[in-house]
Amino acid sequence: MVAPQNFLDFIDKNQDKFIDRLAEAVAIPSISGDASRREDVKKMASWLEAQLNKYGVKTQQVPLGQQHLEGKTLDLPPAILGRIGDDPNKKTVLVYGHFDVQPANKSDGWDTEPFKLHVDKRTGKMFGRGATDDKGPILGWLNVLETHHTLGLALPVNMVFCFEGMEESGSEGLDELIATEAQKGKQGWFGDVDCVCISDNYWLNTRTPCVTYGLRGIAYYQITISGPGSDLHSGIYGGAVFEPMTALITLMSKLVAIDGHILIPGVYDGVSAADADELKRYSELDYGVNDLESAAGGPVANSDDKVTVLMARSRNPSLSLHGIEGAFSGGGAKTVIPATVSGKFSLRLVPPQTPEDITKKVISYIESEFAKLGTKNTCKVEFLHGGKPWVADASHWSYEAAKQATEAVYLTTPNYTREGGSIPVTLTFADNLGVNVLLLPMGRADDGAHSTNEKMDISNFIKGSKLLDMIL
Amino acid sequence: MVAPQNFLDFIDKNQDKFIDRLAEAVAIPSISGDASRREDVKKMASWLEAQLNKYGVKTQQVPLGQQHLEGKTLDLPPAILGRIGDDPNKKTVLVYGHFDVQPANKSDGWDTEPFKLHVDKRTGKMFGRGATDDKGPILGWLNVLETHHTLGLALPVNMVFCFEGMEESGSEGLDELIATEAQKGKQGWFGDVDCVCISDNYWLNTRTPCVTYGLRGIAYYQITISGPGSDLHSGIYGGAVFEPMTALITLMSKLVAIDGHILIPGVYDGVSAADADELKRYSELDYGVNDLESAAGGPVANSDDKVTVLMARSRNPSLSLHGIEGAFSGGGAKTVIPATVSGKFSLRLVPPQTPEDITKKVISYIESEFAKLGTKNTCKVEFLHGGKPWVADASHWSYEAAKQATEAVYLTTPNYTREGGSIPVTLTFADNLGVNVLLLPMGRADDGAHSTNEKMDISNFIKGSKLLDMIL
Repeated sequence: MVAPQNFLDFIDKNQDKFIDRLAEAVAIPSISGDASRREDVKKMASWLEAQLNKYGVKTQQVPLGQQHLEGKTLDLPPAILGRIGDDPNKKTVLVYGHFDVQPANKSDGWDTEPFKLHVDKRTGKMFGRGATDDKGPILGWLNVLETHHTLGLALPVNMVFCFEGMEESGSEGLDELIATEAQKGKQGWFGDVDCVCISDNYWLNTRTPCVTYGLRGIAYYQITISGPGSDLHSGIYGGAVFEPMTALITLMSKLVAIDGHILIPGVYDGVSAADADELKRYSELDYGVNDLESAAGGPVANSDDKVTVLMARSRNPSLSLHGIEGAFSGGGAKTVIPATVSGKFSLRLVPPQTPEDITKKVISYIESEFAKLGTKNTCKVEFLHGGKPWVADASHWSYEAAKQATEAVYLTTPNYTREGGSIPVTLTFADNLGVNVLLLPMGRADDGAHSTNEKMDISNFIKGSKLLDMIL
Repeated sequence: MVAPQNFLDFIDKNQDKFIDRLAEAVAIPSISGDASRREDVKKMASWLEAQLNKYGVKTQQVPLGQQHLEGKTLDLPPAILGRIGDDPNKKTVLVYGHFDVQPANKSDGWDTEPFKLHVDKRTGKMFGRGATDDKGPILGWLNVLETHHTLGLALPVNMVFCFEGMEESGSEGLDELIATEAQKGKQGWFGDVDCVCISDNYWLNTRTPCVTYGLRGIAYYQITISGPGSDLHSGIYGGAVFEPMTALITLMSKLVAIDGHILIPGVYDGVSAADADELKRYSELDYGVNDLESAAGGPVANSDDKVTVLMARSRNPSLSLHGIEGAFSGGGAKTVIPATVSGKFSLRLVPPQTPEDITKKVISYIESEFAKLGTKNTCKVEFLHGGKPWVADASHWSYEAAKQATEAVYLTTPNYTREGGSIPVTLTFADNLGVNVLLLPMGRADDGAHSTNEKMDISNFIKGSKLLDMIL
């Protein structure tokens, strides 16, 4: 739907106010993976709820139970459910977002304090943890709500909100909530939802807006090798004992080849090759290997072919080695034989891969490779969390609305993309509500979600807010 | 020389006072590898100097220049030189020790606070960082000095002391100091030294005292692989980029086999096989694979043969993988592709290996293996620090004195051992002063130097103090 001009003007005029609100949100270090920050995640939930209430959204904080983290039992942060509008003649759109963030410390390499939004008007960029993942997009919806509320304009749809505070830590508790609400049917919050809209991914480049109809799944693992009762001095024991690091590094070296090919037997089973149509779709996208390398900040692409690179990051599975817990990780030169080490890695999944099937293959492969080593150390392989991959029908009316809104705001046709990252909740909504899900990213490819110097461009924040309104 | 009975009685009677002094020393977190603890290392130097002065030792704090650590320029901790006695008719013994310690945090897995000496009278063990490495042994000498001083007994030898605060961080500045003092001849602190005694290693087991006539050297390396400009999200980039962790893990997997065999070509060049005599010497030691495993706290020995295990940890080279800097090292499941990762490993060296020769082989091998990978990431191999191996003449008079003192205090013949750890200063003294060096350990095999719950047995501390006196 085309937004009235006074709506667009209001957004432009209130740009600074909207940025101030983003700064307020970024200032709350709502890190879901850090037990010591749990109160900040709850604070963020309450902050968000208050904002929604201000613009007429009825809300509920839903407790999601408890979790064990870093040896403590903690309350999970609540989910915030909300609704505005109840007109049976209007469509109902469910908006999902998450208000928790990844960890960040200035010492990780940030140029500015990660939890103090740094607005660089010269470059038009706003730096801060959560600026793009996912506080910026959530606040885009607040901008839409404030604008309608202040101008007295009715929303063209009924809106339902589902915001969570555990997305960066496996969305604990959310699947159950969505399933429960879905089962309640008309009695629940999600009863009459016609479509779900999620802004938690990124453009393919730094120029072209996109709509996203596919996501890779994820399966995250930990291999723990144990040996001595405690860390040993490498001078005293080196050479005479089976060292857990030697076994772990050997196992980790057998997971993925340097070119990214996954070495776990059977992992590619059923993954189809792209046909001519699909290859054509990738070749038509506004994208180049340069976009990848400039976003990544270095000449790191493992192919010079645009289509190969696009497929590698979105429609083929991948495996990344993330690190090792328990080994020496500081600066300098510590002569330790670590007693227990846990190697972390994850696979990105595409249809028909599922975490369950891949987990069987991963565990069986690693256990068999470990058995070959003949060490007296012990090995445990754990599946830490996962989510299925997802591909939607990109010809659905919600995608058509997104395309038209993009053309109106950005004056260009969007890229139609499949995204490499996982947003497991996408599939949970699709499966439980049986409706189409639309992924409509707000940020650019170089935003640096999960990384140092995470940012959102001011223009993406402002135009993105207009776009969100215009798809309604 | 046999110590007078009143000397031995004094030590027994003052046990608690000596333990209190060790607690004072442990309470100063003199971590040389941590820039933020540099003042504590200096404080420890002054504490030690004051103790020496109290018992009639003339001392000098010798500045050793500066170093760059964690982006800062810091003063190196001073060395403490000292002397007591100037009788040309007596032999002069130089005692070396170090007052710095390895890092330690309770959260690493300590049962008690690492910098608060925990004395468990029931088990007779004293837990704390530095208890055995190397504050306990240093304080053994203070016990000897205090006893002689209080009882008015002249020392049977002239004594020279050389204590440093950088042993755990490559002994920066010390080689130059020793070389300078050695060049000064009679005008320097070390002019008339007849023998050097160092207590900075460990018994082979938990029962039998030993004297040590050999040490392995060390060569410590870091492989740094860089790619993207900053850490990347594995969902967005995984599959499309060359990941530094994949290259690093691959390279690290090519360094050492699971059984401890080093895979770097040429690394064993010139290392002789043990002849029948040497094998016999190992077979006669009071030691079993059980000793190794009980000290290590787990069934981790890579051979069931006592001689093989002894040789593996003391007279053969070894390679340990210590960890990775820059990768994800926390708990939980972070989906990061680390941008720059540094793998740490070190070799323990035996004659005729030298750090210089091994470094050439290590760098050439890793660079050639890296070239084979065909990644667009970059690789840098750095030698961080090293020290040559050392083997002494175990029939020297100082060894004979140590044997007799051990028989008098412990009522048993000592094990004659080669030690797996490196104490590079041993070789510096041997080379610069041209005298014999005696290694006379105070602690047991299970003391856990560099590890969590480092300890010293009370009986080792007290009998060890008597032993130090009786070798004089």
